[in-house]
Amino acid sequence: MGRIVTFGEIMMRLNPEGYRRFSQAGRFEASYAGGEANVAVSLANYGHSAAFCTKVPAHDIGQNAVNALRLFGVDTQPMIRGGERLGIYFVEKGASQRGSKVIYDRANSAIALAKREEFDWAGILEGADWFHWTGITPALGGFLPDITLDALRACKQKGITVSCDLNYRGKLWSREKAGEVMKTLVPYVDVLIANEEDAKDVFGIEPDGNDVMAGKLNHDGYISVARQLQENFGCRAVAVTLRGSISASENDWAGMLYTEGQAHFSKQYRIQIVDRVGGGDSFGGALIHAMLKGMGAQDGIEFAVAASCLKQTIEFDFNLVTEAEVLALTGGNASGRVQR
Amino acid sequence: MGRIVTFGEIMMRLNPEGYRRFSQAGRFEASYAGGEANVAVSLANYGHSAAFCTKVPAHDIGQNAVNALRLFGVDTQPMIRGGERLGIYFVEKGASQRGSKVIYDRANSAIALAKREEFDWAGILEGADWFHWTGITPALGGFLPDITLDALRACKQKGITVSCDLNYRGKLWSREKAGEVMKTLVPYVDVLIANEEDAKDVFGIEPDGNDVMAGKLNHDGYISVARQLQENFGCRAVAVTLRGSISASENDWAGMLYTEGQAHFSKQYRIQIVDRVGGGDSFGGALIHAMLKGMGAQDGIEFAVAASCLKQTIEFDFNLVTEAEVLALTGGNASGRVQR
Amino acid sequence: MGRIVTFGEIMMRLNPEGYRRFSQAGRFEASYAGGEANVAVSLANYGHSAAFCTKVPAHDIGQNAVNALRLFGVDTQPMIRGGERLGIYFVEKGASQRGSKVIYDRANSAIALAKREEFDWAGILEGADWFHWTGITPALGGFLPDITLDALRACKQKGITVSCDLNYRGKLWSREKAGEVMKTLVPYVDVLIANEEDAKDVFGIEPDGNDVMAGKLNHDGYISVARQLQENFGCRAVAVTLRGSISASENDWAGMLYTEGQAHFSKQYRIQIVDRVGGGDSFGGALIHAMLKGMGAQDGIEFAVAASCLKQTIEFDFNLVTEAEVLALTGGNASGRVQR
Amino acid sequence: MGRIVTFGEIMMRLNPEGYRRFSQAGRFEASYAGGEANVAVSLANYGHSAAFCTKVPAHDIGQNAVNALRLFGVDTQPMIRGGERLGIYFVEKGASQRGSKVIYDRANSAIALAKREEFDWAGILEGADWFHWTGITPALGGFLPDITLDALRACKQKGITVSCDLNYRGKLWSREKAGEVMKTLVPYVDVLIANEEDAKDVFGIEPDGNDVMAGKLNHDGYISVARQLQENFGCRAVAVTLRGSISASENDWAGMLYTEGQAHFSKQYRIQIVDRVGGGDSFGGALIHAMLKGMGAQDGIEFAVAASCLKQTIEFDFNLVTEAEVLALTGGNASGRVQR
Amino acid sequence: MGRIVTFGEIMMRLNPEGYRRFSQAGRFEASYAGGEANVAVSLANYGHSAAFCTKVPAHDIGQNAVNALRLFGVDTQPMIRGGERLGIYFVEKGASQRGSKVIYDRANSAIALAKREEFDWAGILEGADWFHWTGITPALGGFLPDITLDALRACKQKGITVSCDLNYRGKLWSREKAGEVMKTLVPYVDVLIANEEDAKDVFGIEPDGNDVMAGKLNHDGYISVARQLQENFGCRAVAVTLRGSISASENDWAGMLYTEGQAHFSKQYRIQIVDRVGGGDSFGGALIHAMLKGMGAQDGIEFAVAASCLKQTIEFDFNLVTEAEVLALTGGNASGRVQR
Amino acid sequence: MGRIVTFGEIMMRLNPEGYRRFSQAGRFEASYAGGEANVAVSLANYGHSAAFCTKVPAHDIGQNAVNALRLFGVDTQPMIRGGERLGIYFVEKGASQRGSKVIYDRANSAIALAKREEFDWAGILEGADWFHWTGITPALGGFLPDITLDALRACKQKGITVSCDLNYRGKLWSREKAGEVMKTLVPYVDVLIANEEDAKDVFGIEPDGNDVMAGKLNHDGYISVARQLQENFGCRAVAVTLRGSISASENDWAGMLYTEGQAHFSKQYRIQIVDRVGGGDSFGGALIHAMLKGMGAQDGIEFAVAASCLKQTIEFDFNLVTEAEVLALTGGNASGRVQR
Repeated sequence: MGRIVTFGEIMMRLNPEGYRRFSQAGRFEASYAGGEANVAVSLANYGHSAAFCTKVPAHDIGQNAVNALRLFGVDTQPMIRGGERLGIYFVEKGASQRGSKVIYDRANSAIALAKREEFDWAGILEGADWFHWTGITPALGGFLPDITLDALRACKQKGITVSCDLNYRGKLWSREKAGEVMKTLVPYVDVLIANEEDAKDVFGIEPDGNDVMAGKLNHDGYISVARQLQENFGCRAVAVTLRGSISASENDWAGMLYTEGQAHFSKQYRIQIVDRVGGGDSFGGALIHAMLKGMGAQDGIEFAVAASCLKQTIEFDFNLVTEAEVLALTGGNASGRVQR
Repeated sequence: MGRIVTFGEIMMRLNPEGYRRFSQAGRFEASYAGGEANVAVSLANYGHSAAFCTKVPAHDIGQNAVNALRLFGVDTQPMIRGGERLGIYFVEKGASQRGSKVIYDRANSAIALAKREEFDWAGILEGADWFHWTGITPALGGFLPDITLDALRACKQKGITVSCDLNYRGKLWSREKAGEVMKTLVPYVDVLIANEEDAKDVFGIEPDGNDVMAGKLNHDGYISVARQLQENFGCRAVAVTLRGSISASENDWAGMLYTEGQAHFSKQYRIQIVDRVGGGDSFGGALIHAMLKGMGAQDGIEFAVAASCLKQTIEFDFNLVTEAEVLALTGGNASGRVQR
Repeated sequence: MGRIVTFGEIMMRLNPEGYRRFSQAGRFEASYAGGEANVAVSLANYGHSAAFCTKVPAHDIGQNAVNALRLFGVDTQPMIRGGERLGIYFVEKGASQRGSKVIYDRANSAIALAKREEFDWAGILEGADWFHWTGITPALGGFLPDITLDALRACKQKGITVSCDLNYRGKLWSREKAGEVMKTLVPYVDVLIANEEDAKDVFGIEPDGNDVMAGKLNHDGYISVARQLQENFGCRAVAVTLRGSISASENDWAGMLYTEGQAHFSKQYRIQIVDRVGGGDSFGGALIHAMLKGMGAQDGIEFAVAASCLKQTIEFDFNLVTEAEVLALTGGNASGRVQR
Repeated sequence: MGRIVTFGEIMMRLNPEGYRRFSQAGRFEASYAGGEANVAVSLANYGHSAAFCTKVPAHDIGQNAVNALRLFGVDTQPMIRGGERLGIYFVEKGASQRGSKVIYDRANSAIALAKREEFDWAGILEGADWFHWTGITPALGGFLPDITLDALRACKQKGITVSCDLNYRGKLWSREKAGEVMKTLVPYVDVLIANEEDAKDVFGIEPDGNDVMAGKLNHDGYISVARQLQENFGCRAVAVTLRGSISASENDWAGMLYTEGQAHFSKQYRIQIVDRVGGGDSFGGALIHAMLKGMGAQDGIEFAVAASCLKQTIEFDFNLVTEAEVLALTGGNASGRVQR
Repeated sequence: MGRIVTFGEIMMRLNPEGYRRFSQAGRFEASYAGGEANVAVSLANYGHSAAFCTKVPAHDIGQNAVNALRLFGVDTQPMIRGGERLGIYFVEKGASQRGSKVIYDRANSAIALAKREEFDWAGILEGADWFHWTGITPALGGFLPDITLDALRACKQKGITVSCDLNYRGKLWSREKAGEVMKTLVPYVDVLIANEEDAKDVFGIEPDGNDVMAGKLNHDGYISVARQLQENFGCRAVAVTLRGSISASENDWAGMLYTEGQAHFSKQYRIQIVDRVGGGDSFGGALIHAMLKGMGAQDGIEFAVAASCLKQTIEFDFNLVTEAEVLALTGGNASGRVQR
Repeated sequence: MGRIVTFGEIMMRLNPEGYRRFSQAGRFEASYAGGEANVAVSLANYGHSAAFCTKVPAHDIGQNAVNALRLFGVDTQPMIRGGERLGIYFVEKGASQRGSKVIYDRANSAIALAKREEFDWAGILEGADWFHWTGITPALGGFLPDITLDALRACKQKGITVSCDLNYRGKLWSREKAGEVMKTLVPYVDVLIANEEDAKDVFGIEPDGNDVMAGKLNHDGYISVARQLQENFGCRAVAVTLRGSISASENDWAGMLYTEGQAHFSKQYRIQIVDRVGGGDSFGGALIHAMLKGMGAQDGIEFAVAASCLKQTIEFDFNLVTEAEVLALTGGNASGRVQR
C-alpha cells in the first residue's frame, strides 16, 4: 500500500435533517469534508497511508475537522493550526424535481489566508508516492495558486505521481481566472479527473453533442475531450465521470478512463440517491487506489465507478466503503441483498 | 403584488418521524397547517401581502399556530383569539403500497364554534384584492356556512376576486349537506379549484371514464366536468388537479385550467413523494399568484402544477418555494441537479 | 380466532438511524425481534391469542423484550426468566446498490443455553391450536434441537397444527448440521415455509433454473421444490416466498402456496423498501392467519404476500398491519392513496 | 398479590423535548397517562394484576393508549372502544423559578361522553380486591358521576376495598360542584388520598397554618385535616402528600398516613426534579401496594413516599420502579450510587 | 404600547445538544440571536411594536434570521438584504465547574461590512419612541461606529429615547479602542446598562471592592460606578446587572437601577441555569418595557431582574416570557409550581 | 511528553437518552469506552503519545471501537483484530435519589478470550515510558491474568513505570479470586490507584471509620489504607479518590496522594453530575500526566482531582479536557463563567 498526500480545504458541512429545507432547519447535522479530504478518507479506507494537508484554526471547531479525519485513520500530521475560521458550507438535500442546494460560507478561512512559508513541502511529502489536489485549492485565492505550485514542483523533484480533479467552482473564481491559473498547474498532473462540465468551464474544451440536462451520454464527445486534455497537458491518464440526472432522487452514473490512446467505459449504474455530495471525490479516491494497486484500465474505471456509485448511497461526503465492498459490486452483486 | 385574505381553519399537525406508523410513534413532529393557511403561506413566499383569518384559542398552543404563519411572513392580524381548542390532525406517512393515513381531531375547535359577529369582514377585507376559501370552511359546521356567506357578500360589494377549492371532506359532512351549502356559496366564486373527486362528491358531476385508482387520466372527462362547473356557477375559470397514484411513494401529477371555453393542460410530472399533504393547496396558491401576476392560462397552469409538484418534495403542508424555483422547473430544469 | 404459540429467540435489534452506516452511528434505534416473535406479533395484530415462548434474562434488557411483545398484545406468559444475556443483532439499512448488513451477537444468549427441563410443554401448549417455529431455533445449538423436538412431540399428542419456516442461517450452523437436525424435526410440520434459498441450503433441494441474483422468477422450479419438500416430509402445504432484488431500495415480491398437488401463485408487487427485515416472518404470520380463518389456498397466498409486502414498507421487524389493511391491498388498492 | 381495577381517563400527553417552552417545540414527546392509569402501572410494576377501565376511540391513537398500558403489563380488557377522541394534555417542563405548565384539551373525549350502560361493573370488577378512582373521574362531567357511583355500589356489594385520590381540578369543575358530587361518592371510600390543597378545594377543610408557597410543613394542620376527612366520610385511612416547592427544580417531599386515630409522618426527601407530573399518583399506587402487602402504617407511608420520590426522578407520568428499588430507598440508600 | 427600534447584528447560533462538548457534537441546534435582536424579541413578547435593523445576506441562511424574528412578531422591515455571510457563534453549555464556551465566527458578516448610505435612519426611525443599541454594534468595526452615530443623531433630532448596553467584547476590539469610540456615542444615551465588568473595560470605571469570582456583591461599589457613568455621560438612568457565579449550573442574579440620585436594588434570585446566554439582553428588554409602561424605579428594576432570571431558565438567547409571567415572579411566586 | 501504553477491554456503551430509564429507551446513544481506554484518551488529550492495547472483532462494530479512539488521537496500532464480539454495557443515568444503573454484557468478548501468544509485548511496549492497567483486566478471566503478568514482566525488563487502578468488579470475580490474582500482579505496580472500596474488596484493607453511604470522609482512615497498600506491595505512590454521594445528581469529590510517607489531600469539589461514569479513570489519566510532567505531589493530586471533577460534567466516559482547562480549575476558577 502506498502513501498518499492530499492538499486542500476541509470545511464544516451543515445540513438539515432528512429532506428538510433550510427554512425548516432547527438542527443541522455537522460533518467535516472537502474534495481532497474526502479522497484521503477513501484511500485510508482502502488501507493506504493517507495524509491530508491544510490549515485549520487552533480552536475546538478546527480540532473537530482534525478529529473527523483521524476517526477514519487519515494522518493529520500535515494539518497546520492557525488562522481565524474554518470554512462552512450548508447543504440542503433535494428530492425528485427539487435539486439539492449548497450555500458556501468559506471566504477568509484559515487555509484561504495561509502563507507560502507555512508549508514545508519537503517534509510534508516525505515518503509519499502520490499527491492529490483539486481545482478548488487554487481557486481559494490568496497564495493558494503559488502554494499549490510549490507542492507540485516538490512532487516533480521527488518523482511523486500527481492527480488532480479539475472541479471548477464558479462561486470561487471566473472561468478566465481558472483557465489562466490551471494552465500553469495542470502540466504537473499525471492523472486528470473531470466531471462533465469542468473541462469546458476551465479550458473551454467541450464534450461535443452531450446534453447533460437530458441525461444522455455521448461516448464520442467524452473521448474527444479526454484526448484534448491529454494532448494539451501531457497527462498519462484522463478520467471522466458521466452523470445522468433523472431527478434529484435518481441518477445514472458511469465513467470513462482514457489512457494510452484508449477509452475505457465502465458499466452504468442507476442510483437511488442517498447523498450525492462527494460522489466525484470518491471516484478520484477509488481511481488512485486502482492505479496504486496496478489494476488494469478497464478494471480501474469499473472500480472507480462502482466505488462512487456506492458513495451516493451513503450519507455525508465521505465514502465509507471497503475495497471488498466495491469489488462485490464490480463483481456483479448489485441487487442490494442483505449481508448476514 | 396584491393583498390576499384567506379564511379557514388552522390545525396542529402531528406526524411520527419518518415512515413510522402511529403505533411506533414515541415522538410527533408538530407543525401547523390548514388548506387556506397553506395558500396564504404560498402567496407570502411569492411576495404578496397575504393575510389569514381564523379563530384560535388564547393559549400557547393557539399562539404557536399564529407564530407558524408569522414565521413565513403571513399577516396574522385577522386571527381572532378565543375558544377552547385548536383542531389537531395526525398524519402517518405511507410508502409504496401502504397509503398515508390521516386522523382528524378537529371537532369543537375555536373556529368551528365561532360566531358571526366576531368577524368584521369590512375591516378584514380592507385593501384586499383576492379572497380565498375552501369547501372545508363551511363543512366545519356551526355558523361557518353563514360566516363564509358574510365574507363572500362583502367581497362582492368590494369587487374582490374570490377563489375556492371544493375540497370535499366526507368526515365533516355528507355529500347531500355539502351540495346544499356549497350551492349557495360557489356562485360567488370566480376561480374554482377541484381535485379529481370533489366535483362528484359535492355536486354529483363526474369526470367521465376516469379510473382514478388505475392512475390513468382522461382529458375529455376533465374538460366536461370543468365546463359543467363553469356553466352551473358562472366561474371565470375552473382548475383541476390530476393525480395518478402509482404508489404512496410515486405519483404522476398534472393539472388543467379551463377558462374562456378553452382547456389548458399542463406538463405531467412523475414525483418521488416526500410529503403529499398540502399538494392541492400549493396548487391553489400558485394559481392565484399566476393570475395576480397576469400570466396567461397555459403559463398559469404550468406554474401551478410545477409549484405543487415541488411541494410534494417538501416535508409538512407548507409549500416553501420561491417564484424563481418554480420558474426554473417550468423552464425545463427538472433533473434535480445541485445548485451551488 | 385461535390460540397460537410460537417458540424461538427474541433479540435486541440495534440499527443506526436512517441510512447511516455502522461507522456513522452515534445512536442506535432499539427494537426487539426474532423470527418467531415477529410471527406472534402478526397474529396478535390479526386478533388471535398469540403467545411467545423463549427464555430471557431477568434484568431490565430482558424485560424490555417482554415489554416489546406485551405492547402489541402478545401473551408473554411462556417467557422464562433467567440466563445472562439477550442476543443482539445490528442492522445497517442498505440503499440502491448497497445491500443491508446484519451483524449478529447472539451466542450464549439465555435461550441458546436453556435446558430441556425448563420447558413445560404440556402447560405452554395448553389450549393451543397452532405451534410455529423456524429453523433458527434448533440452529441456536445447545439443547435447542432436543427442546424443539419435545415441543413437536407434545404438539403431535395434542393434535396441534405445526408450521415451520426453514430459515437457514449459515452463521449458526453448517448446511450438513442443518440438514441432519431438520430431517428429524420437519416430519412433524404441517405447513412448511421457505424462502428462495433455504430448501437448497438445508435439504439440497433446488428451484431449477432460478437465477436469484438477476431477480427472475421461475415458476416451474418453485413447484418442483415444493413438491419435493411435501413428498419428503409429508407436509400438508408448502409455501414459498419469491423475492426479486432489483436493488436494496426496490424489490419484487410474490409467493406460492403448494397444497393438494396444486400450486397457487400470488400477484407480484414491486416494493419501495422501507425495511425488509422481517418480511419472511410476516408472510408466515399472515399465512397462518389465512389458514386459521379458513381462506382458500389462492386467497391465503394473496393474503400472505400482501401482508408481507406491507411489512416491507414498515420500519423494524414487526408487521404492524391489521387484517383490514391487508385485505384492502389484496382487494386491489395498491396505489397508496391517503386514508382520511 | 391482589387484583386491582382502576377507573378514569387516559390521555395523550405531549411535551416539548427537555426544557423547551411550548413556543419552541418543533417536536413533542408522546406518552399516555392519567391519574388512575398511572396507579395501575405502579401496581403492575409491583407485581399485581392491575386492570384499567376507561373508554378510548377505536382508532390508532386510541389504540396507542391501550398499548402504552399493555407495555407495562396492565390488563386492558376493561377498556371500552368507541367515541371520537382521546383527551390530550400538553406539558411544558419548568426549571428553577419558571414553573411547569399544563394545557388540557380533554373535553368531549370518549370517556367524558361515555354512557352508563356501557359499563358492566359486575364483569369489570370480577375477582377484584381493590378499586381505585380519583376526583378527576366524576369531574369529567356527563354521566361520569353516575357511572362512578355505579362502580362504587358494585364494590360495596362485592366487598371490594375502595381508594380515592381527591385530586381537585379547577379547570374541570367548580369547588361547589366538586363538593356536591364528591360528598355522594367519598362515603364509599376506604382509603382517601389528598394533596395539600384538595381537601380545602373540595370540602372546604383546611390544613391550618400551612403556608404552601413557602414550602413549610405544618404537622398539626395536616393531622387536623385528616381527622376531619375521616370523621366526615368514615374512611379507614387518610393519606396526605406534603410537597414543599423550593423551585421548579427542587422540591421537598413527604407524606402522612392517618389511621386508627394515629398520624404517621414519613421521612422527608429533597428531590432534584426530573418530572414531577404523576408524583401524587405514584404515591397512591405505592400506598395501595403497601396496604395489600400488609405493611404497617409507618412502613406503608415510608414506602409510598419513597416510591413517589423516585417517580419524580423519572420522565413522564408512569412510576417505573420495582418494589426492590423503593425498599432500597426506604432502607436508607438515598445517595444515588451506581448499581453495577 | 410604544414602538422600539433596535440596531445591531443577528447571528446564527449553533450549539451541541444538551451538555455535549464541541468535540462530541454530531448535530448542532440552530437558532438566531444577537444582543439587540434579543431585546426586540423581549419587547415584542411584552406587546410592543418592536423592529430590528441590521443587514443580512439575501440567501436562505440570511432569510432564516429574518424568519426567526418574524416568528415572535418582530417587525423585520428595517432588515437590509445583501452582503455575503451571516455571522455565526458556537455555544457549548457548561455545567458545574465547567464553564460555558463561546466561539465567534462573525468577521466579515453582512452587517460588519455595511455602508453608511444603506441606512435611511429617518425612515427606519419613523414613529419610534425608543432606540436601543449595544456596545457590540460599533465594536463590529468598519463603518459601524459612524452608522451608529448617524442613528443616534437622528434619534436626538426626533426626540427618541436611547438605551445602550455597554457589553464590552474583548474579541472585537481593545479596551482603548472601545473607550475612544464609546465616548463619542454614549453621550446620546438616556438609559445605560452595564454588567459587572463593562464599565471597567470600556471606561476604566470600577465597582470598588467587588470580587466577581467569589460571587460576592458589593452594593456601594455598584452605586459608585453608576454615579460615575451618569455624571460622565449625562444618562438619565444607569442599570447594572449583578451576577454571582456559584458554578456554571447555579448563579445568583440581581440588579440595580440608579436614577435621580437614588439606587434601587432588586431582590436576588438563585437560578438553576438552563441557558444563561441572553440574560443581560433580557434584562435590557424588560427594563425598557418597565420604563415605557411607567413603572417606578423599584418596580422597574424588580421587573427587569425577574424577567432576566426567567430567561436563564429558557433555552437559547430569546426571553420567551410574557409580562404576566414576569409579574407572577415579582409578585412572589418563585416556587415553580405547576400551572394547570 | 511521554509514550504511554494502556491495556484492557474496550466496550460499546449504550445508554438511553437523557434521564430515561432502560424501560423507556427506544434509542441508545452509542459510545465506546473502558477503564484503560479512557485513561489513554485522557493522556492523548494532554498531548502525550498514548496507545491502547486490546483485542476487538474484525467487524464493523469492532472497528467502531478503534475509530472512537482514533478520533481523539489514541494510537490504535496495538489493537489486535479477531474474536467474535465486542463487550457491551448498558448505562441508565440516575438522578436525585435514583442511582445510576449499569448492566454488563461483556462475557466472551474478543479480549476476554484472547490468547497469550497474540500479544507481542516487546513490540507493543517499544518506546513506552509508562504502562497502565486496571484490576478489571485480569478479572476478565481466561488467560488475562497471565497476559497481564507477561506485560508487567516486560515492563520491568524495560524499566517502564507501571500504574494500576484496583477497580474491583464483583460481577467479574469474587473477592477471594481477585485478592489471589492481584497479589501476584500488584507487586509490579509503581503507582496504585483505588477508590473508596477497592482496597477492602480486593485486599481486605479498610479505611477505618469511613461511612461511605453518608458521604463523610475520614482522612486518617485513607492514610492508613494507603500506607498499608504501599507497605504490602512496595508501590512508590498510592492515590485514593474520595467520593461523597449526596445524591445521584450531586457528589463531593476529592483525592489523596500518599507518597514518600506523606499524604497530600486535594481541595474538595461539589459536583452537579452530568455523567459520573469514567470519573475514576480520568483521575488516573490526569495523575499519570501530572507525574510525567514532574508536578509535585500536591500539585499532582490537585490536577488529578480537578480533571476528574471536570470529567463528571461531561457526557460519556471519556474526559475531553485539555491541560489548560484543568489548570484553570486548579488555579481557582471554579465558578463556571462563560469563556468567550
